[in-house]
Amino acid sequence: LSEQFKPEASPDELAERMWRVGLGDFRAAATRIASDAIRTPLLTSIHPSRSVCLKPENLQPLGSFKIRAGASVLATLDPGITKVATASAGNFAQGLARAAQRRGLQLTVHAPDSAARTKLEAVRKLGAEVVEHPFADWWRILSTRQTGADDGTFVHPVAEVGVMLGNGTIGLELAEDWPELDTVVVPYGGGGLVSGIALALLALGQKVRVVACEIETAAALSAAFTAGEPVRIERQPSFVDGIGSSFVLPEMWPLVRRLVDDVVVVSLQEAEAAVTALALEHHLVAEGAGAVAYAAAHSDRCGGRHVAAIISGGNIDLGTLGAILARH
Amino acid sequence: LSEQFKPEASPDELAERMWRVGLGDFRAAATRIASDAIRTPLLTSIHPSRSVCLKPENLQPLGSFKIRAGASVLATLDPGITKVATASAGNFAQGLARAAQRRGLQLTVHAPDSAARTKLEAVRKLGAEVVEHPFADWWRILSTRQTGADDGTFVHPVAEVGVMLGNGTIGLELAEDWPELDTVVVPYGGGGLVSGIALALLALGQKVRVVACEIETAAALSAAFTAGEPVRIERQPSFVDGIGSSFVLPEMWPLVRRLVDDVVVVSLQEAEAAVTALALEHHLVAEGAGAVAYAAAHSDRCGGRHVAAIISGGNIDLGTLGAILARH
Repeated sequence: LSEQFKPEASPDELAERMWRVGLGDFRAAATRIASDAIRTPLLTSIHPSRSVCLKPENLQPLGSFKIRAGASVLATLDPGITKVATASAGNFAQGLARAAQRRGLQLTVHAPDSAARTKLEAVRKLGAEVVEHPFADWWRILSTRQTGADDGTFVHPVAEVGVMLGNGTIGLELAEDWPELDTVVVPYGGGGLVSGIALALLALGQKVRVVACEIETAAALSAAFTAGEPVRIERQPSFVDGIGSSFVLPEMWPLVRRLVDDVVVVSLQEAEAAVTALALEHHLVAEGAGAVAYAAAHSDRCGGRHVAAIISGGNIDLGTLGAILARH
Repeated sequence: LSEQFKPEASPDELAERMWRVGLGDFRAAATRIASDAIRTPLLTSIHPSRSVCLKPENLQPLGSFKIRAGASVLATLDPGITKVATASAGNFAQGLARAAQRRGLQLTVHAPDSAARTKLEAVRKLGAEVVEHPFADWWRILSTRQTGADDGTFVHPVAEVGVMLGNGTIGLELAEDWPELDTVVVPYGGGGLVSGIALALLALGQKVRVVACEIETAAALSAAFTAGEPVRIERQPSFVDGIGSSFVLPEMWPLVRRLVDDVVVVSLQEAEAAVTALALEHHLVAEGAGAVAYAAAHSDRCGGRHVAAIISGGNIDLGTLGAILARH
């Protein structure tokens, strides 16, 4: 399992490898990341006709679940490896940088030159080297896993066994804390979070319906399910910037098409109302992506009797948050 | 221990009874409240020269640690009791109401007629009866524990064995999660939170320095330590409304004078900056009282190497929160 996924592999190879992952692999990941990530609590959210609980991953170090992925993937590498590279513009680069720093590994982060300065600065502060590229070049690095430099083992932010094992530890905690759980609602970004959680629950033998949620302005997964394959969609930028791409990653599609039972698309208005409810009722600052799961779990389109919503992160600009709170 | 503290008792009697409380009593309280309250996680807060962790009690049901107190005190009552009364204007009434509702107990809440309508409405929604009084009459009820009505066993929101046992469960969790803990910073309201935590740590035999924190506009404990006894101070209202009275409760003074090692007084400016930092860095919505502990733990006046700050609650008006975030 420590072997890296190779760019020359077929799109189905990652899926085939993930199907062979067992409960022991997820449990080992949980042990490996225990000093990097916290065990987030389960918070009860009041709903008139179903039990809804929240898993507040925004409380993790650096404010998102990505620390689980970053720590897990580094812990599954060959111990002889000292240099690691990734292509990321956001939370994953930070999670990986922090995990690399704690393990004394040298990290190079390849980022699009359009990435937010504050995010790149945060990555540098965590000791990583940042190399910026025009967007097309950056996308090529992400797709081919070739950085063109001698900067070590490439780690993909999503389509990576170690990443999904780390994300799956959320599933283990959910099942342990809430045996009655029948539905889990997960924001859909690259597909690594929903796949990791779904596979961990499968490995436990727990029958849980998996609902992926998207924002109306960038619902690529919904479009892929309608078309029967990944299709390019037009993506509108919004305050929900942690999820929503214009295309489902081809190497993730064979996994998510089997693991995801339903997709719930959330409107911007619902997402804003969810940000407000999370602050008012749960005292949580959530970013748009995390709020989308709350909105989906509380909507009529979700279903389920015992529903857990993954509040994936809290990295929202305080000005944006203030403006949303002022409107509601 | 299930016996109620009597109004006719001397101010020292509660302290004497609390000194006799043992580790088994705190552990029993933890078991009794396990289905009412969550086990809050310990969150790491970055500080240049000491380890600071946060205990986010704002994530509890109803948004404050008071659910621990309310559930604990009801669970220590004689099983034959079906009617309970209290005098409270705020979070404790809500915590007690929720715990009473879950246990099928009838609760009467005596409140000052100056109490916030939203808080009284929340208590009514939880099934309790609310009786309003002019402030002086309400204060007399709180002081004498006589409601003048046949409304059952009176439960004091602070000076009550069961209340402090419930609050002490925070101390048990801290010690278990962080054996290196050497300093705990606790907002000082009525004294029940700091006393419960300090006594639980003592019962565990863990040598931890106890720092009570206050807001500059209502620093009654600081004044009491200076004077050597409770003295009346002038209290300025501020957004920090969950702590700070004009007088240290006489029945709590014999406890807190021995249990509290230091008092740190926080400025309004520091409290506002703490509300902002909690939102930005920890993705937590904290009320002023909770933010005061964060400010104290991060200040030069605190000391300690391994410092835990109790974020006691999150019930802040969203307009107030928005205004604070906009200023920083």
